[in-house]
Amino acid sequence: MKLFSFWRSLATYRVRIALNLKRLTPDEVIQVNLMKGEQRAAAYRAVNPMMAIPALVDGEPPALFESLAIIEYLDETHPNPPLLPRDPRGRARVRGLAQIVACDCHPLIVPRVREYLEHEFKLDEGARNKWCAHWHVAALAALEAHLNDKATGRYAHGDAVTLADICLASHAAGAQYYAVDTAPFPTFSRIVGELSAIDAFARAHPLKQPGAPAAL
Amino acid sequence: MKLFSFWRSLATYRVRIALNLKRLTPDEVIQVNLMKGEQRAAAYRAVNPMMAIPALVDGEPPALFESLAIIEYLDETHPNPPLLPRDPRGRARVRGLAQIVACDCHPLIVPRVREYLEHEFKLDEGARNKWCAHWHVAALAALEAHLNDKATGRYAHGDAVTLADICLASHAAGAQYYAVDTAPFPTFSRIVGELSAIDAFARAHPLKQPGAPAAL
Repeated sequence: MKLFSFWRSLATYRVRIALNLKRLTPDEVIQVNLMKGEQRAAAYRAVNPMMAIPALVDGEPPALFESLAIIEYLDETHPNPPLLPRDPRGRARVRGLAQIVACDCHPLIVPRVREYLEHEFKLDEGARNKWCAHWHVAALAALEAHLNDKATGRYAHGDAVTLADICLASHAAGAQYYAVDTAPFPTFSRIVGELSAIDAFARAHPLKQPGAPAAL
Repeated sequence: MKLFSFWRSLATYRVRIALNLKRLTPDEVIQVNLMKGEQRAAAYRAVNPMMAIPALVDGEPPALFESLAIIEYLDETHPNPPLLPRDPRGRARVRGLAQIVACDCHPLIVPRVREYLEHEFKLDEGARNKWCAHWHVAALAALEAHLNDKATGRYAHGDAVTLADICLASHAAGAQYYAVDTAPFPTFSRIVGELSAIDAFARAHPLKQPGAPAAL
């Protein structure tokens, strides 16, 4: 397996967690420096036309793309430990929680969007960071409401780690990037605390990757 | 089943297509007028804390939420016709194509985002529409590159309709909202043409729903 990665990418963080949980180690991790725009280079565009990471090559090309699609692929090809519950309602809840993060918030704060705000709308860093923080808080409020449910256990859905927890962890890292206080969301914060103690999550954290700063 | 819907919602359009393909008819369709902000009313917020549609109640509450999660739930509980291929690589491709639409583009143009651009950034309608069109074009370019592949058939993945086609159709409707020319994306356009001839797609179209204008 060949993973296209970058320390700061929250979507790649999700895939790294899933790989760790499945005890899979890519043969090669290729750095795509988002801060230098390397995702737009012709070579990478041929790998992933959306010019975003992660991408994962498993055996023959073409590369797999989109973090949630990649994680479900890993879950289908390496079923243990499972990242989705077995019952359809539970699966829908887990996927729904994951999509609050990966659809409703994260796409709004990726490099291409922040660059549009800067170059097209001429917004300064303060306005851009406020934007990023705003969407994190909106998703946190929705997540917290959903997590105040009997379906929540030690983790987001019962007592086993799922795709929802992977996305909660990436959302917590994003909140940290934009100095969003997660204390007003106690169930979210409790679960993220539990997750940070799991080696598969800790090792995958953005700040533990090559090229990452020592602290934000 | 009870569906929370609105004619203009592209995410709800996707769920309507899936319901039609599965020959399911909700017992009740509840209109949530996004143009009047009804998605933020306390009554609806209790249904879906993200304050977005669709939501689907199937039997007992709580409601299912997030369009892709709902569609996978429908596919798992009503397997025929299947909306995903059987092989993991094919499933990953179909989910990835769907997520280019539902994660990389659509979240950027929903009401809460357009309202933020208007009220916080004080951007006029022209700038807002340019923003919406921009993200549609970015996704169209990525989709077209992916569709130029031998895995594409009559539809986005082979000759059977999948979740990817559902998202292509919603993307085409979004492109229409923002006057985006899809002609430079011939494979996308060809497939959307095929889809528009399918009754399950045609009946679900935004302009065929209660409250929709006769034309855009």
